[in-house]
Amino acid sequence: MASIGIGVIGLGRMGRVYATHVAAQASDARLVAVSDSRPEAMAAIAERSSSLKTYVNYHDLLADPDVQGVVVVTPTHTHREVVIAAAQAGKAIFCEKPTALTLHETDEMVAAVESAGVMFQVGFMRRFDHAYANAKKQVEAGAIGDPVVIRSIGRDPFRTSLEYANPAVSGGLILDMGIHDFDLLRWLMSDEVERVYTEVASLVYPELQDVGDVDNAMINVRFTRGGLGNVEVSRTAHYGYDIQCNVIGTKGALQIGYLQHTPVLTLTREGARHDVVPYFQERFGQAYTAQIEHFVECLRDGKQPSATHIDARAALQAAIAATISQHEGRIVNVADVK
Amino acid sequence: MASIGIGVIGLGRMGRVYATHVAAQASDARLVAVSDSRPEAMAAIAERSSSLKTYVNYHDLLADPDVQGVVVVTPTHTHREVVIAAAQAGKAIFCEKPTALTLHETDEMVAAVESAGVMFQVGFMRRFDHAYANAKKQVEAGAIGDPVVIRSIGRDPFRTSLEYANPAVSGGLILDMGIHDFDLLRWLMSDEVERVYTEVASLVYPELQDVGDVDNAMINVRFTRGGLGNVEVSRTAHYGYDIQCNVIGTKGALQIGYLQHTPVLTLTREGARHDVVPYFQERFGQAYTAQIEHFVECLRDGKQPSATHIDARAALQAAIAATISQHEGRIVNVADVK
Amino acid sequence: MASIGIGVIGLGRMGRVYATHVAAQASDARLVAVSDSRPEAMAAIAERSSSLKTYVNYHDLLADPDVQGVVVVTPTHTHREVVIAAAQAGKAIFCEKPTALTLHETDEMVAAVESAGVMFQVGFMRRFDHAYANAKKQVEAGAIGDPVVIRSIGRDPFRTSLEYANPAVSGGLILDMGIHDFDLLRWLMSDEVERVYTEVASLVYPELQDVGDVDNAMINVRFTRGGLGNVEVSRTAHYGYDIQCNVIGTKGALQIGYLQHTPVLTLTREGARHDVVPYFQERFGQAYTAQIEHFVECLRDGKQPSATHIDARAALQAAIAATISQHEGRIVNVADVK
Amino acid sequence: MASIGIGVIGLGRMGRVYATHVAAQASDARLVAVSDSRPEAMAAIAERSSSLKTYVNYHDLLADPDVQGVVVVTPTHTHREVVIAAAQAGKAIFCEKPTALTLHETDEMVAAVESAGVMFQVGFMRRFDHAYANAKKQVEAGAIGDPVVIRSIGRDPFRTSLEYANPAVSGGLILDMGIHDFDLLRWLMSDEVERVYTEVASLVYPELQDVGDVDNAMINVRFTRGGLGNVEVSRTAHYGYDIQCNVIGTKGALQIGYLQHTPVLTLTREGARHDVVPYFQERFGQAYTAQIEHFVECLRDGKQPSATHIDARAALQAAIAATISQHEGRIVNVADVK
Repeated sequence: MASIGIGVIGLGRMGRVYATHVAAQASDARLVAVSDSRPEAMAAIAERSSSLKTYVNYHDLLADPDVQGVVVVTPTHTHREVVIAAAQAGKAIFCEKPTALTLHETDEMVAAVESAGVMFQVGFMRRFDHAYANAKKQVEAGAIGDPVVIRSIGRDPFRTSLEYANPAVSGGLILDMGIHDFDLLRWLMSDEVERVYTEVASLVYPELQDVGDVDNAMINVRFTRGGLGNVEVSRTAHYGYDIQCNVIGTKGALQIGYLQHTPVLTLTREGARHDVVPYFQERFGQAYTAQIEHFVECLRDGKQPSATHIDARAALQAAIAATISQHEGRIVNVADVK
Repeated sequence: MASIGIGVIGLGRMGRVYATHVAAQASDARLVAVSDSRPEAMAAIAERSSSLKTYVNYHDLLADPDVQGVVVVTPTHTHREVVIAAAQAGKAIFCEKPTALTLHETDEMVAAVESAGVMFQVGFMRRFDHAYANAKKQVEAGAIGDPVVIRSIGRDPFRTSLEYANPAVSGGLILDMGIHDFDLLRWLMSDEVERVYTEVASLVYPELQDVGDVDNAMINVRFTRGGLGNVEVSRTAHYGYDIQCNVIGTKGALQIGYLQHTPVLTLTREGARHDVVPYFQERFGQAYTAQIEHFVECLRDGKQPSATHIDARAALQAAIAATISQHEGRIVNVADVK
Repeated sequence: MASIGIGVIGLGRMGRVYATHVAAQASDARLVAVSDSRPEAMAAIAERSSSLKTYVNYHDLLADPDVQGVVVVTPTHTHREVVIAAAQAGKAIFCEKPTALTLHETDEMVAAVESAGVMFQVGFMRRFDHAYANAKKQVEAGAIGDPVVIRSIGRDPFRTSLEYANPAVSGGLILDMGIHDFDLLRWLMSDEVERVYTEVASLVYPELQDVGDVDNAMINVRFTRGGLGNVEVSRTAHYGYDIQCNVIGTKGALQIGYLQHTPVLTLTREGARHDVVPYFQERFGQAYTAQIEHFVECLRDGKQPSATHIDARAALQAAIAATISQHEGRIVNVADVK
Repeated sequence: MASIGIGVIGLGRMGRVYATHVAAQASDARLVAVSDSRPEAMAAIAERSSSLKTYVNYHDLLADPDVQGVVVVTPTHTHREVVIAAAQAGKAIFCEKPTALTLHETDEMVAAVESAGVMFQVGFMRRFDHAYANAKKQVEAGAIGDPVVIRSIGRDPFRTSLEYANPAVSGGLILDMGIHDFDLLRWLMSDEVERVYTEVASLVYPELQDVGDVDNAMINVRFTRGGLGNVEVSRTAHYGYDIQCNVIGTKGALQIGYLQHTPVLTLTREGARHDVVPYFQERFGQAYTAQIEHFVECLRDGKQPSATHIDARAALQAAIAATISQHEGRIVNVADVK
């Protein structure tokens, strides 16, 4: 069969990552077009493929009949506009997380997607990491009985730029990073978050407070069926990129994640030493590829993707609730967030 | 020098453990007397040493001039009475945790100990585990910078008896098990718990609710200097005895604990398998010995023990605050607990 | 700059692997042509790229001016003929290991390569695995002092086909698998193997004896500067693909390798379980890519590759010595193998 | 029942270790007497127990009717004389390994033990380590099918004194350390060593050559039923005490041993670091206790110990064969060693 034409809108850091994954990996797809308002952002990638079409205006890419699916990697605050336009153009849509910083915008995107009847996948790439995917399979197979307690930890080794940290841009620590954890909570527990309570602090980077952000958040979670959870998001893991998840079931438990990047142990009088996963590409590179392959496969076979606009909305709602708890210092019911 | 005479009051399960540790291990001490209202409880241990004195009434043991220090391992609700009597008798006191189920009782014990000027050590044995002790040393040496976030997890593989689970007897899950974690939080952070929020559930043993207890608690913690913490206590770790602690500092982190009991990895087509620490004796046997050796050493050298009545009171106050949060579903300031 | 044209000769299992790596990964190279005497072997890969040239006769590929470098992945017994022709055609040559089954053939290839002055790299891909590469760096940086003892273990989870196991085809267990280990010994010790003594057995697959092969070999090694080594090669690791190396130096040691494939630990009453690396693609996929990228980079920059025809010959000589020891039951000096 | 009276002969470093284990641990035994030609060697231990009898002449200890079993920890070259005297005195005998440095002496001891019909246990303490004991159980339970390949590694962090290293005193590296590995090979494979080939070197401590010893030995092993093995003994593991064993069976494998002593992982920008087992007391303390408890238990119940004089002789014979191979540079058949 002819391979599926993919267009990438937005060639910032993550846009280039996605474009490369489409070009190099996804076997049934080909990268036919890219769009970025800054022509120079498209130059490098265009150089590598003579057949690649470049559009300064993404509406032109959406009008290209060779494009069946679009990967939206523009700044978060523009997702709404681009996704609605793509839906109206009848394109299948892959949208990087978070879909938006407000439920209202997300609801508009959801409405456009549903009325257009196009496929929509959100970039919750951890679901495609071979470890998380394996854990999900084991939970579904009953390996640990019913999952009742979950702990999801996401620690970054670096502070983001103050511009990006600004909640008006990124949504702040919890929306920006924690949304992955809230998606994992819902997915691995097959349950919804009922209420949350958040404690936050700026323990290493006080300057984050000046832009309205923090460097650590500890979120206590209760699920609607009574299960318990905890989410920790941090920008202060000086030692490396530390992503862990622990699911405790009625008959056993799962521990997901690893710290060692290079399988070499160095033994000296000072003890045994190994390195630590440096950052997200080293940990989740395979997951970025796999989620795009899943997008292409669903597009090809007319299947529903595993992370839909419904999942995007639900995770966002829980993350917003945790952010309200952060700012108002109170227990927040997720259902009360409209 | 002549070795120090130790008396053990209360020969239940833990009492026998302590008596054995004193008899077999502590190099400068000798077990000279035991006391239990049930003579049969003393029979087995008396058989093994002809010189051991046995007292049905612990007041007689307290009157014995050969006894310099007493190890109080009676049921928690009797600690107050025994400790006050021991203080008045001028004996150095080692008291199993928790000192009491109420701050009021503990304050009376603290007052008696201070007015008598006797040495007092509480049974926070984890401080004497070689892993926790090593972690404390590393924190003090600045190996991870300033500790800012801490996560302490204590999971038991079994449900306690419903009689014991009764909060009137054991204080409930948080006072009974979590008090160890609250002590570790204070000790490793060198800070006090400012406020807590607790979520609880009975996820595997609904029958615990009938006696007023739960099988899981997830406690969010803020420290007075702004640090964050989380305590998880559970009776539902079917896979084994899982005690972990994670301390994140401004320059690094510590992971304390282990799961594998026997260092044998079995490799088959089904994968790699190893066993898990079954229960507390296998994990902390050495710590029970070490804390009694510390007690004897402090008694011999006139030093302050590392876990005093002050530590006992502070950990209890935080654990009570978490228990109030459990029952009232609200954020509780520790200082408000009188 | 224009990317470098690569041709792949031989599209068996490994040939397809290499062709895919060239096509998908090596950034400065493009796959311009493939050759295989069986047209059907070229069909699938040709389908994926309209521009790819296919040659039933490899001499036509060697005559193609768009081809600057060739990857030779034909059956081992044909390497000599193809490599000599490629050298005479002035192409840079990447040749899969082993170069040949006899020193005589290898010497002819070495002579052709040297008289033509073309670049030659042998497929010792483990040197490009990020773990082995990191270990080499650490050894060179003096992290363990001088390396003095080395142990290299290679265990396969499956028996090869009896056709392939036939020493006339594969060279037998030691030449086929152990040659990787002998290359690592020379590379990590920066020394040559002086003598070897081999014990072998057919412990699980007695049928291997009928074709003249074995399923396990244990080889004791002495180096010319006095260091000691041991090589174990096995086809009977039912549990998975187990590749390890241990280098002991005068000031420390390195342990290279890992067993767990998916970073998920499953904890139940039966203990803790994780999976095992299933086979070589999962363990060394990255290394196959990296060695081709190294080949392209050396070709582009006119550098000597890290694994040359000299290395190919030396590792083969030591592996042949170990094979003679296997058959003659005696200690064999490597230098005596002509 | 009355506890069993134990006498310890020889209070060097290991003698004091055994005496302490008997005094503190073995529940059915009591340490009634010690003997050492140097009274000062007995002073410290006598101080701690008023009832302990001390004999400068071990014959007097053997004549003591309160002594039912003796622990012989005198210098190896005196084992023969003491064991024969103990056998003639009708005492049960625990003898530290190796029983002797020659088969001839061992045969005389075996004859004396058998004619006297007394119980004899040799100090192969690794059989009592909970990891090795668990591995043996798993092998017997068929967890890995039939064991076919074994690798036993023993690495010491320190050089012994040149006095002790002298083969006339300790038997040299292989007899002194490797005898443990040869016992494990026989025990875990349930087979006998047929032939050996040894390579040795003095890679870190050239001075060992002056006294006739080496610091590393690599021994290739074949078993009578065709299985393969390898033994590595070393005095140059600067990083710590590294004792490992790997048993490969027809259906799986076992990896025995561990490196980390304190379960704390320290994570910094430099990577993750943990300590290493420093020396044998930390690794095998429990095994020393367990083997004495086994001795007492067998004595009490009239059972055969698990490591008899037969095992002592067989392991010694294999170790001597490996030592001959070391000196004569040839393959040695164990059965030829008389």
